[in-house]
Amino acid sequence: MSNFGFFDLRLVEPYRVAMDEARSAVGAGELVASAKEFDSVGSAVADAAVVVGTTNAQGREVSRLLRRLETGARDWRNNAEPLAILFGCEKHGLGKEDISHCHTLWRIPTRGEHGSMNLGQAVAVVLYELIRDDTPIPTKPQRRAQQAELQRFEQMLADALAESGYVHSPSTMEKIRTLILRLDISQHDAAVWQGMMRQILWKLRHNRE
Amino acid sequence: MSNFGFFDLRLVEPYRVAMDEARSAVGAGELVASAKEFDSVGSAVADAAVVVGTTNAQGREVSRLLRRLETGARDWRNNAEPLAILFGCEKHGLGKEDISHCHTLWRIPTRGEHGSMNLGQAVAVVLYELIRDDTPIPTKPQRRAQQAELQRFEQMLADALAESGYVHSPSTMEKIRTLILRLDISQHDAAVWQGMMRQILWKLRHNRE
Repeated sequence: MSNFGFFDLRLVEPYRVAMDEARSAVGAGELVASAKEFDSVGSAVADAAVVVGTTNAQGREVSRLLRRLETGARDWRNNAEPLAILFGCEKHGLGKEDISHCHTLWRIPTRGEHGSMNLGQAVAVVLYELIRDDTPIPTKPQRRAQQAELQRFEQMLADALAESGYVHSPSTMEKIRTLILRLDISQHDAAVWQGMMRQILWKLRHNRE
Repeated sequence: MSNFGFFDLRLVEPYRVAMDEARSAVGAGELVASAKEFDSVGSAVADAAVVVGTTNAQGREVSRLLRRLETGARDWRNNAEPLAILFGCEKHGLGKEDISHCHTLWRIPTRGEHGSMNLGQAVAVVLYELIRDDTPIPTKPQRRAQQAELQRFEQMLADALAESGYVHSPSTMEKIRTLILRLDISQHDAAVWQGMMRQILWKLRHNRE
């Protein structure tokens, strides 16, 4: 929850022993410390405008409220109304009474053969879906190497190949050029490559003398 | 991993004690039992065509390889080439040597103030992103109530209000109709509502006699 910026944790009839332990644990997050407890789902969601249940929808009637998480979450991602998301206990999920409070149900698209998820992982996936954002982050584009730099590199590679006795045909130079272009080298990397090739070429020529 | 249909778990230098315990645990999944062990990242990813690292990209230089998970995963979701996804240990994440094997890096969009995730949750979120699919699932549409059914309901509500002494103005009927239309009632629910309203109306009239 904290990873994705959700801080209002509400617990309905939590298991007392586990909860007291969690609250008093060394390093217990603020989130756990400030979790509110309720004695019913109804009172826990009382101030929500929309209530969403999560379910793997197996072994029970598939409800007309059911949406796959990807599509269900789309409608609420930028909604400003208070949204409550219900998670059932790890063993049995949400019951019928819990679900009667829900405007809609979301299903994480797990495999039919392994539908039921670890609770913490299910929470992470649902909250991630709510905050995910397809807009690309601006990345500082690497400046692509200029043709002149590539040409120097091409020439050095050709020279090195010639020194090494690599079979030369009239089209070798074009092959080398195409090969190098496909590498899509940045300006920075082109300089490194040139340095390496210069050294190799020097050694080849030095050995010959 | 099993929830989302990923079965090839590879471990690089796993902590021996924990691993042996996990393998021999009662109910250890097939996935853990068949996990392969390697002594280096290089050998673990040797048969992959693409290697992706996961990082919260905090406290280190942001690499030009870095993509946010949502955008990074988009390119590989339907790619048939073998993809290796590296996760670092929970405490320190991936190191520089690990990252040098990666074609690209993905960052789960966690809050800056709480970037580092629980390992199991991070794996769940990344794999979910890879299999998520926006295409709506076909849901059996509920048949919407016919106007005639709504009109019967409208009339009964109007009658019940009249019996109850609710203030009537010439536009009351239109108000009721608009109110009911906004409910967007299904055929099934319209029948239930009519049954309830019929009973209430009966009781009102019965009390009067």
